Amino acid sequence: MAQTSRAIIENDQYNTSSERHLHFFNKGETIPLMPQGIWQICQGLVRLSTLYSVGEEGLLGWGGPSMCFGSCFSHLQTYRANALSDVCLMWYTMIEIEASPKLAQELLPQLGRRFRQTEALLAIVGQRRVEDRLHQLLLLLKQEFGQPVTDGTRLSIRLTHQDIAGAICTTRVTVTRILGKLQQQGWLSRDKDRHLILKNEAFAYSSDLFGFVSNNNH
Amino acid sequence: MAQTSRAIIENDQYNTSSERHLHFFNKGETIPLMPQGIWQICQGLVRLSTLYSVGEEGLLGWGGPSMCFGSCFSHLQTYRANALSDVCLMWYTMIEIEASPKLAQELLPQLGRRFRQTEALLAIVGQRRVEDRLHQLLLLLKQEFGQPVTDGTRLSIRLTHQDIAGAICTTRVTVTRILGKLQQQGWLSRDKDRHLILKNEAFAYSSDLFGFVSNNNH
Repeated sequence: MAQTSRAIIENDQYNTSSERHLHFFNKGETIPLMPQGIWQICQGLVRLSTLYSVGEEGLLGWGGPSMCFGSCFSHLQTYRANALSDVCLMWYTMIEIEASPKLAQELLPQLGRRFRQTEALLAIVGQRRVEDRLHQLLLLLKQEFGQPVTDGTRLSIRLTHQDIAGAICTTRVTVTRILGKLQQQGWLSRDKDRHLILKNEAFAYSSDLFGFVSNNNH
Repeated sequence: MAQTSRAIIENDQYNTSSERHLHFFNKGETIPLMPQGIWQICQGLVRLSTLYSVGEEGLLGWGGPSMCFGSCFSHLQTYRANALSDVCLMWYTMIEIEASPKLAQELLPQLGRRFRQTEALLAIVGQRRVEDRLHQLLLLLKQEFGQPVTDGTRLSIRLTHQDIAGAICTTRVTVTRILGKLQQQGWLSRDKDRHLILKNEAFAYSSDLFGFVSNNNH
């Protein structure tokens, strides 16, 4: 993380609660997950996954600013969090949370956001057609991580075809084929940093599955 | 719900908070889901699902005592809750929750429980082999809804083969085949009310996927 933005966050944080430390991780780093508490994201993006006994990885979702994650609210034995960008996190122990109604009040809507995303992913993978699963995943990501650009919405999270395949329970080859088709049809493109851009006209309609209206301003 | 147990719950409730009403639904009833708040289960079991545009249903999970559910913490357009038994519920509006740190403190661990179940279901469906998915689902249900009986653990939730198929993204026919095999091997049975009994020796080991040790006392 650039020293300037780190300084800004540290300063902001100092003003609101001088006792709580911030934790910084560089892009690509694995974030340690201790069982006694949860992380809240102050800045940056995180990828969450689990590891199956056969050695394969199961994608569980993505976290952005103010979302929380951690093994405290999880049954999973292996839980992995990777920094997709430089990230800045805040750590809360369950003892602190249980003791502070004010903290619980701050964290409840954030856990609600994580729940909403996880439930949406579960609803997505239950769909029969892989094309529907991919379309709904892109709508969900647009809602959660979309930034308006000139001709559409840019996903601030950079996804590999393998990640998308993991999220919608299909193979990388299938994802490559369908994304290629959507790109040919002019429904999406990639910018110079390999982030997906979803074109307005193709992703402007409200989703069948989700209640949010998928518009340009998400 | 029997009048006696209803009277007991109403009386208990009266002692703790005389202002909050309890809501009762009979087995088989659809529970209305208003967007402004969430339900908390006081007694009974609830089945949660969504409806896809093709007319199929996507299973999202099950709720038991003290768990909460509702469309307030959901992106889903269609959200269905069905009473699997007679149920007694408490309703909280988001305005109330946002205004009361004490209520948020009570609800945070319960939303955590719902999150944990949903994330576990997502991790289960990501597994390649359908046998693994079914085995892990039974372990999860044992943890969440298991009651110790003489020779194993009884699932207090009665599941149809179609429900299991929906939860692990496979067909009813496949579920019937695998359950039949497990029954032949003596790993599970059904009691007279058609509830599954998981035999101790077959489901005594800790799960690969989950951190909980799957023992007789869950």
